Amino acid sequence: MTHPILTRLVAQLTRLPGIGPKMAERIAFHLLRALDGEVEQLLQAIRDARVRLHYCQTCFNFTEAEECRICRDLQRKPELLCVVEYPQGVSVLERTQAFQGRYHVLHGALSPMDGVGPDQIKTKELLNRLQQGQIQEVILATDADVPGETTATYLAQLIKPLGVKVTRLGSGLPMGGNLEYADDVTLTRHYCPVKYR
Amino acid sequence: MTHPILTRLVAQLTRLPGIGPKMAERIAFHLLRALDGEVEQLLQAIRDARVRLHYCQTCFNFTEAEECRICRDLQRKPELLCVVEYPQGVSVLERTQAFQGRYHVLHGALSPMDGVGPDQIKTKELLNRLQQGQIQEVILATDADVPGETTATYLAQLIKPLGVKVTRLGSGLPMGGNLEYADDVTLTRHYCPVKYR
Repeated sequence: MTHPILTRLVAQLTRLPGIGPKMAERIAFHLLRALDGEVEQLLQAIRDARVRLHYCQTCFNFTEAEECRICRDLQRKPELLCVVEYPQGVSVLERTQAFQGRYHVLHGALSPMDGVGPDQIKTKELLNRLQQGQIQEVILATDADVPGETTATYLAQLIKPLGVKVTRLGSGLPMGGNLEYADDVTLTRHYCPVKYR
Repeated sequence: MTHPILTRLVAQLTRLPGIGPKMAERIAFHLLRALDGEVEQLLQAIRDARVRLHYCQTCFNFTEAEECRICRDLQRKPELLCVVEYPQGVSVLERTQAFQGRYHVLHGALSPMDGVGPDQIKTKELLNRLQQGQIQEVILATDADVPGETTATYLAQLIKPLGVKVTRLGSGLPMGGNLEYADDVTLTRHYCPVKYR
């Protein structure tokens, strides 16, 4: 008996990542009850982001200019490149302020089951950057799950012949973690660390 | 180092109920990467719902007409009224197909700490409906939490003098629930059921 207009809104909201039907309904009712200005600000923020942000021509992070601020930053080490799956990875690593190099955003990870092969992510663009010869070390900061590991292994095979050093983000116990509660896969890897040489 | 346009979008998304900063970032990047048509469908669904849906003049559920379908439905028992906090309550109860009466949506529950008193919810409108004399039983289907219980107790006090029967949704073990795992408050109430007489 829900109104079709409401059903359609809930269906649209359910397409967003991490939003189930219950939560979509809650958001839909919130949007209906909210003040005009509040909803307009949200819609405007979405439109602005869609119109003004696009991929950086170098690293494929989102930017308003042709090249993003990190790629243009001359303080950054040009010989160091960190490869991440998604722009979120850049945000997370930038928050640490520990990394001084530049980034390359793949926009995905290899997952043949989902039809994602090397051509569906920014592999070619990564190799083009490496062939320019300035980059001496690539840190593969893909996730520690199956697609992330597959992508790292695949990219390592492609990059090594170019004479570029390839490393992976450290894997092991998270800081503050207890040996007692660590899973077997993490412990096994920690004991025999994987090196791409 | 996140782009200000992106920061603004994430901030706007965080204002939606149940969306934290991590999830807002995930949704923001999804909206950026999605196809034009997909995002336009979402924005259109939000605009449509805002423009075309408004409160039913009788029960205050959302509707496109002056009165909602349930209020206009002559098959519904006119003597039975179910009071809920939010329109979601109507959806949930309608899904059961067990209730044959009509509804009244309060659009909130009493919570003096949050500045919600009887004037902030549709109390006056409920009493107006009851004074028309057709309704013989009111089922208070507010939540079983502190604001919901407070609202039920308050409304029961107002309604009883009108000579209308007041009941509350049953409280006790949910179907399939285990006595062993039930909390003390539920058990105490179940043992001495609360009746508004």
